Amino acid sequence: MATAVKVYGPPMSTAVSRVLACLLEKDVQFQLINVSMAKGEHKKPDFLKLQPFGQVPAFQDECITLFESRAICRYISEKYPNQGNKGLYGTNPLEKASIDQWLEAEGQSFSPPSSVLVFQLAFAPRMKIKQDEGLIKMNEEKLKKVLDVYEKRLGESRYLSGDEFSLADLSHLPNAQYLMNTDRGELFTSRENVGRWWGEISGRESWKKVVEMQKSPPPPSA
Amino acid sequence: MATAVKVYGPPMSTAVSRVLACLLEKDVQFQLINVSMAKGEHKKPDFLKLQPFGQVPAFQDECITLFESRAICRYISEKYPNQGNKGLYGTNPLEKASIDQWLEAEGQSFSPPSSVLVFQLAFAPRMKIKQDEGLIKMNEEKLKKVLDVYEKRLGESRYLSGDEFSLADLSHLPNAQYLMNTDRGELFTSRENVGRWWGEISGRESWKKVVEMQKSPPPPSA
Ligand SMILES: N[C@@H](CCC(=O)N[C@@H](CS)C(=O)NCC(=O)O)C(=O)O
Ligand SMILES: N[C@@H](CCC(=O)N[C@@H](CS)C(=O)NCC(=O)O)C(=O)O
Repeated sequence: MATAVKVYGPPMSTAVSRVLACLLEKDVQFQLINVSMAKGEHKKPDFLKLQPFGQVPAFQDECITLFESRAICRYISEKYPNQGNKGLYGTNPLEKASIDQWLEAEGQSFSPPSSVLVFQLAFAPRMKIKQDEGLIKMNEEKLKKVLDVYEKRLGESRYLSGDEFSLADLSHLPNAQYLMNTDRGELFTSRENVGRWWGEISGRESWKKVVEMQKSPPPPSA
Repeated sequence: MATAVKVYGPPMSTAVSRVLACLLEKDVQFQLINVSMAKGEHKKPDFLKLQPFGQVPAFQDECITLFESRAICRYISEKYPNQGNKGLYGTNPLEKASIDQWLEAEGQSFSPPSSVLVFQLAFAPRMKIKQDEGLIKMNEEKLKKVLDVYEKRLGESRYLSGDEFSLADLSHLPNAQYLMNTDRGELFTSRENVGRWWGEISGRESWKKVVEMQKSPPPPSA
């Protein structure tokens, strides 16, 4: 069952899972092509043609090849405006601007410290790499400041960009999910509005499917 | 001469200057309102209402208040499609996707190491802060890898996202300008295509005006 839309990379990767969540929200069929990072497939010439930085995900449809998970999510949302979740990237320029603003806040403020924590707390133990306590502490402090801003914002509106779930919320799911599975979950749950928001966004059917995919054995390689 | 569009923050700030370059490319009149970072005005309650993270820039027009420089640039470009540089954010979905991709590459791959270098090499000496040689070295290595990807890309196309100057190129100007003014300029000029590209993008009238604004005394505070 070949489909036109292809995603390259393992669902375990946070950036890949961001794109999968978007495709599922938009009800877009796709084919997932595994890239074995253990075997270094993401640094091989064939893959570098799709993603010149040697990172996952890469994305392809009949029109375009793309990298950068947040750019891919924007493209999917704009290409299928009337399919699946119609408001995922807003339905007018002002909604869209607010979504872009919080999507940038995720990429610029939430992602840097939370990515370090995901690596240190979730991946390093599995890879038998020694954790860097100083780095963990520093990034936990940074993340707390970001979540304090979110706490205030989410006291004013149900979701980050307004009353509706959007790409901005979705983009937080991958890192937040890993952190919730460590002993640092209370970074989220100790903040009333952030905890309420996490419950709502992580309970979406699209995200529950991604979490299932993360548990399944990988599909065949490219 | 009050105008509807307001930008809050000093032009010296890289994120503020990104927005100024976009407004000038799009021929949009604006009022620049200084925020004295030396006096900590960006952490005061009034400013936090505009920018909850306490960072510059903030942006306002008759419709919306926004933060995050790249989100502001997207909004400006979409609001004034037929004014100034019409292709700045593309003229069709595929161009736009390519611009978003390289704008994300700037925000995710170029900006983190180059921002550290800008602080360490350009700001720390002025602020009489001791430079961290280890941090400089590490981020220089990271930036070199990013610029190697750009070198290849810019051998295939004139600008990052294609044949035309776009938001993706523009977004690199602020950090690149500071680095060009240090002894690390050859990070750019030693790479043939990157050097050619830097010459083209930094020679634009819009950017030359921003550089002038960075040299002028600040306008009155908010
Ligand atoms: N900004 C990129 C980040 C991609 C990224 O960091 N991918 C990770 C996995 S989550 C990766 O490929 N790491 C391997 C490497 O950087 O060598 C995006 O959002 O697509
Ligand atoms: N991602 C934000 C970054 C803004 C930012 O880092 N601004 C700096 C000046 S270039 C700032 O306000 N720094 C002061 C602080 O973080 O306290 C944007 O692009 O607007």
